[in-house]
Amino acid sequence: MNHSPITPISLSIEESLQKKIDFKTKPLGALGTLEGLALQIGKIQNTTEPIITKPSIVVFAGDHGIVNSRQVSPYPQEVTQQMVLNFLNGGAAINVFCKQHQIDLLIVDAGVNASFEEHPKLINAKIAMGTQDYSKQKAMTIEQCYSAISQGRKQIQKLHNQGTNCIGFGEMGIGNTSAATLLMSYFTQTAIEDCVGKGTGLTEEGVLQKAVILKNVYELHQENIQSPIDAISSFGGYEIAMICGAILEAASLKMIILVDGFIVTSALLAAHAIDNNVLDYCIFSHTSGERGHQKMLSFLNVTPILNLGMRLGEGTGCAVAFPIVASAIHFLNEMATFESANVSEA
Amino acid sequence: MNHSPITPISLSIEESLQKKIDFKTKPLGALGTLEGLALQIGKIQNTTEPIITKPSIVVFAGDHGIVNSRQVSPYPQEVTQQMVLNFLNGGAAINVFCKQHQIDLLIVDAGVNASFEEHPKLINAKIAMGTQDYSKQKAMTIEQCYSAISQGRKQIQKLHNQGTNCIGFGEMGIGNTSAATLLMSYFTQTAIEDCVGKGTGLTEEGVLQKAVILKNVYELHQENIQSPIDAISSFGGYEIAMICGAILEAASLKMIILVDGFIVTSALLAAHAIDNNVLDYCIFSHTSGERGHQKMLSFLNVTPILNLGMRLGEGTGCAVAFPIVASAIHFLNEMATFESANVSEA
Repeated sequence: MNHSPITPISLSIEESLQKKIDFKTKPLGALGTLEGLALQIGKIQNTTEPIITKPSIVVFAGDHGIVNSRQVSPYPQEVTQQMVLNFLNGGAAINVFCKQHQIDLLIVDAGVNASFEEHPKLINAKIAMGTQDYSKQKAMTIEQCYSAISQGRKQIQKLHNQGTNCIGFGEMGIGNTSAATLLMSYFTQTAIEDCVGKGTGLTEEGVLQKAVILKNVYELHQENIQSPIDAISSFGGYEIAMICGAILEAASLKMIILVDGFIVTSALLAAHAIDNNVLDYCIFSHTSGERGHQKMLSFLNVTPILNLGMRLGEGTGCAVAFPIVASAIHFLNEMATFESANVSEA
Repeated sequence: MNHSPITPISLSIEESLQKKIDFKTKPLGALGTLEGLALQIGKIQNTTEPIITKPSIVVFAGDHGIVNSRQVSPYPQEVTQQMVLNFLNGGAAINVFCKQHQIDLLIVDAGVNASFEEHPKLINAKIAMGTQDYSKQKAMTIEQCYSAISQGRKQIQKLHNQGTNCIGFGEMGIGNTSAATLLMSYFTQTAIEDCVGKGTGLTEEGVLQKAVILKNVYELHQENIQSPIDAISSFGGYEIAMICGAILEAASLKMIILVDGFIVTSALLAAHAIDNNVLDYCIFSHTSGERGHQKMLSFLNVTPILNLGMRLGEGTGCAVAFPIVASAIHFLNEMATFESANVSEA
């Protein structure tokens, strides 16, 4: 893949940032995680006065062929399409939280099994009408996988050109916790049984069945997977491939990346396997209620901001955590110092 | 104490609220803690369409006589006064976060050992120039304790009359983790050694010394404490007594109460001992980095929204968690239903 390299974030600014944080009128370290966020964002932007401009969330939607042959989700496939329309009409959870925090929201059709009318908030980047059924064949060709990654990159370049420096990703796709489970198993080398969860609401029995189905799928493809691209091609989906590309591009462009839950983190696992410098740019918004997410986070050795048992996807974790990221920047830029406020030090 | 009774929150509205939550376009329970918050707030306001009006944070400040004879804080007493001025000048962490979220901020002089000039954001409710040194005598008289509780109530009545229905409390007072430790030990019946922590930044050795000092103080007063009022009178401080009164009044008036960290929770322990119905109205904003806070929360059997290792006081936990409380109300009022959005159910 041709793309600008991802450089590690600035270390030279660290000392001045830490000093700025420590001179604020508060006990050392008393703002906890907010201080770590301020430090990370200052290093990403290589400044002691970081700002967030035009924060955006992009929701990538795609369908999954597996749902036509196996029961991996309690919802029918048409819900992907219906939820895309719900996003465009402003009725979904992600709409509500983006509106609350003045976050721009864009929807990308990565590969939904339906055709949509034009809409100012909908970007048509469709690679196909859903992936192939990976219980029978690869979810997509290598060429389709590269196209999807490239489309993900393109969306981020556009937003960057428009002034966005902070980006969150969301997804919609009935069946996509299954693809994410397979990718997690591959990238973290964890048995399927320890990756699989209830998704949108399977029963305990449903989860056991899903594990058996996915174990067979994994065995079918295992020998042919030699690279991250092979893994995404085998398991899909288009929305995950695009998010993988979008993450790589956002890190190349030194944007702040807000990471959502189980499915977005599976895309990050792929991006991380391609270039582990991406992690420097990632802020983990929440620990999902989906069972495998905690293990993904442990694998990456990261601790998210929130742990609210949310498991909705759509980028809702990014949106709900966003004001806390903003708080980190506000305290860094706006609080008085012991000296400026004439407060005695310890 | 004469005051309106605190009634348990509405149970009759629970079923309609739960239905409203479950019909939203999301898998059942997928918004995790946000759903619990929506339910609690709907029950507090006895409506399926709750709203927050004029959210406010009141920071109560007071000094502690103990700091004149014993080393319980690394900061000198004048920092209480200096930080009050910092609040009034807009330079403290709580100013920054309140500004970020359009929360009104008021400062109450409950008993600072300094005189302040008049200021539109400063309320003079001073009971005395700091508490007495409780290593020698009671921190305050019973009459002073009742006055402080009554002053706390009065501030909340004023805010309620002005249209505030959601209130957070903060505190400032050099030495007040010591008073909170003593109150925690009394109300939760936990040994001082398991309550004490580093406050604004004591060393490990400093914490051990603080434990010895507070153990002796506890033994000195123990026999004379027969009631929550005795406990507050013995250990102080004025800011804690006022917060206790403010919590009781806010619950009487069916306001949403945002609970901050270690010191505010010690005031809540007292309020809870007076009337355990207060808990129905409390939203726990965060788990403080101060060691004893987690044990207080376990005693009350509650789980806060955030766990960010913050330990700054001032009500900063309330302010940083506020947008998440608002998210709960937004999703409840603004999200589409499966029916309205034409989305298929599971």
